[in-house]
Amino acid sequence: MRIEADSSSCVVAVDAGGTSVRALALALDGRCLGLSRMDGGNPLVVGGSQVARGVAAAVAAAVAEGGADPSEVGGIVVAMTGHMPDGDLGYLGECLKELGVTAFPTLVPDILATFFSGRDAGEGYALVAGTGAAAIRVERSAIAAAADGLGHLLGDVGSGFWIGQGVVRAALAGLDGIGPQTKLTELLQAELPRRTTWPLHSRAEGLIAMVEALHARPARDLARFAKLAFAAAGDPVADRLVSRAADGLARTLAAVATEPWPAVFSGGILAAYPRLAQMVIVRAPKLGPVVVVPDGLAGAAAMALREALGRSIPDTLGRINQTLAPLRERHRAANRETKVKAA
Amino acid sequence: MRIEADSSSCVVAVDAGGTSVRALALALDGRCLGLSRMDGGNPLVVGGSQVARGVAAAVAAAVAEGGADPSEVGGIVVAMTGHMPDGDLGYLGECLKELGVTAFPTLVPDILATFFSGRDAGEGYALVAGTGAAAIRVERSAIAAAADGLGHLLGDVGSGFWIGQGVVRAALAGLDGIGPQTKLTELLQAELPRRTTWPLHSRAEGLIAMVEALHARPARDLARFAKLAFAAAGDPVADRLVSRAADGLARTLAAVATEPWPAVFSGGILAAYPRLAQMVIVRAPKLGPVVVVPDGLAGAAAMALREALGRSIPDTLGRINQTLAPLRERHRAANRETKVKAA
Repeated sequence: MRIEADSSSCVVAVDAGGTSVRALALALDGRCLGLSRMDGGNPLVVGGSQVARGVAAAVAAAVAEGGADPSEVGGIVVAMTGHMPDGDLGYLGECLKELGVTAFPTLVPDILATFFSGRDAGEGYALVAGTGAAAIRVERSAIAAAADGLGHLLGDVGSGFWIGQGVVRAALAGLDGIGPQTKLTELLQAELPRRTTWPLHSRAEGLIAMVEALHARPARDLARFAKLAFAAAGDPVADRLVSRAADGLARTLAAVATEPWPAVFSGGILAAYPRLAQMVIVRAPKLGPVVVVPDGLAGAAAMALREALGRSIPDTLGRINQTLAPLRERHRAANRETKVKAA
Repeated sequence: MRIEADSSSCVVAVDAGGTSVRALALALDGRCLGLSRMDGGNPLVVGGSQVARGVAAAVAAAVAEGGADPSEVGGIVVAMTGHMPDGDLGYLGECLKELGVTAFPTLVPDILATFFSGRDAGEGYALVAGTGAAAIRVERSAIAAAADGLGHLLGDVGSGFWIGQGVVRAALAGLDGIGPQTKLTELLQAELPRRTTWPLHSRAEGLIAMVEALHARPARDLARFAKLAFAAAGDPVADRLVSRAADGLARTLAAVATEPWPAVFSGGILAAYPRLAQMVIVRAPKLGPVVVVPDGLAGAAAMALREALGRSIPDTLGRINQTLAPLRERHRAANRETKVKAA
């Protein structure tokens, strides 16, 4: 949808991740006006209609913070993992209309938005390792090839789930005597709810209590134990796990990498642990410069502007980031303040 | 519960596995009288009360086939994976009473019954690899140590699920270019429902169609692809997977093995593939003779007789197996006949 520059005053970019939905309202010259954040996100996890309501609410909140009128929104780009059925997309349109936003949303793959968060040009690679893991090659601003992203049961090698499950399996195997002793056992134990008696070396009590505590959570929660692999740096079992994750991510990137182009790294794991990113770069085929970005929000914003204007404006990403950083900082400070007040 | 030899004419053994419940009625001298088989079994999968009804029906059918009266049943031993809450056990007692069986059932761990299917003495090891995987050390006829059996998310290394998931991951990784090419890809493709177009080398259609077909099933169904690792013998990826399964099972056995005692191997994977059993034996610590048994039914029968008589009778297992084999053969033939008629 191309709009006349004078018929509307802003566009909105949405990054709907697995744990939160972030929306950003921007002026047509790339200045960030308002930011919002809601819970929820992945339609596979919480259901499409709940996601639609969350996205619509986030859009309205960002527009309000930006001091704009909902009717002035000239375009919306929603970056999302996985697929939203047409029916859910229609429902999202209705939710937006109810809030006064008549622009119809465009869905884009979140990994493509992530790419544009780090690249102002149409060629290169994105590698994401958060709860899941995937890589793409971008040519002429579109996805030309993809690898992995097959979900935690079938793929997602080197993802947070993959590492977290490895941590838990190694921690329990060490305790059970079927794998080497590892520091991961006590680190995992410290993360699980305490029982009255929990002797570490008695299978009957210690191990079974841990297994029961782990089985009491949804399987996807294993991703939150990935951090223990990094916390236990120096432990041979943990180091081997991180090394195998880097091997897997490098193979995923290699499957799409044909030219020495720049790459964008992102995701809750890859962006949080520079050590892992460095290990992937060492193992990956020859790449251009690698930039690490926190998420796909700036990229979704760049896509929303391009779509609304029907053309690129010079240094879009620089303009977006220049005004997005202070907005983010203000939100972080407000969030800290809320937490302090609540404490 | 000890009973007088003349107050009842038979005992019943039940082997309640993940996919079926088998019941065997025996005379007190060890002669097998009647056999039955029902669907269902694992309370974690189908719910406790459904299991209770299935077990009760299987008991009644075995007693009827044996030409005995339900009131003559002097003892029932039920071998089962996992735990049955007391409430469900009470409900099983009620279901049995409704069918005229007043004896109250005793639950035993199915891996211990499996041990007694292969051993007439009180010391040794059992290693089971079916959908799950676990090992025990038996001393004085009771479980003295156990390893693994932690479920497919956290453990069960070398089990049918573990191998099946490895098959699927390797098959998809080969197709996706993130792992080596493997024969497993075409074998897996042949197992999945066909789509109209399914080009093997286009990620967009071939890979995604396979991933969708796999995600459409319950996760535990991955165990059924374990057979492909053996069907693809000679393929380096498949051979490496089987070798790693053997490593894992050998480590599980090693975690409980303290003496060169005999071992009993069983389970849908370990009993079906002598090649795997041989690889485990080569990797395991020094063991006594290894015997492979199909399930825990004969062992549960031996336990039921011991419990009913309050003592062991010489060569119990030999007596049971001598009359169980022809009963099983008759049932298999009848089953074949039913299938031929249905075809």
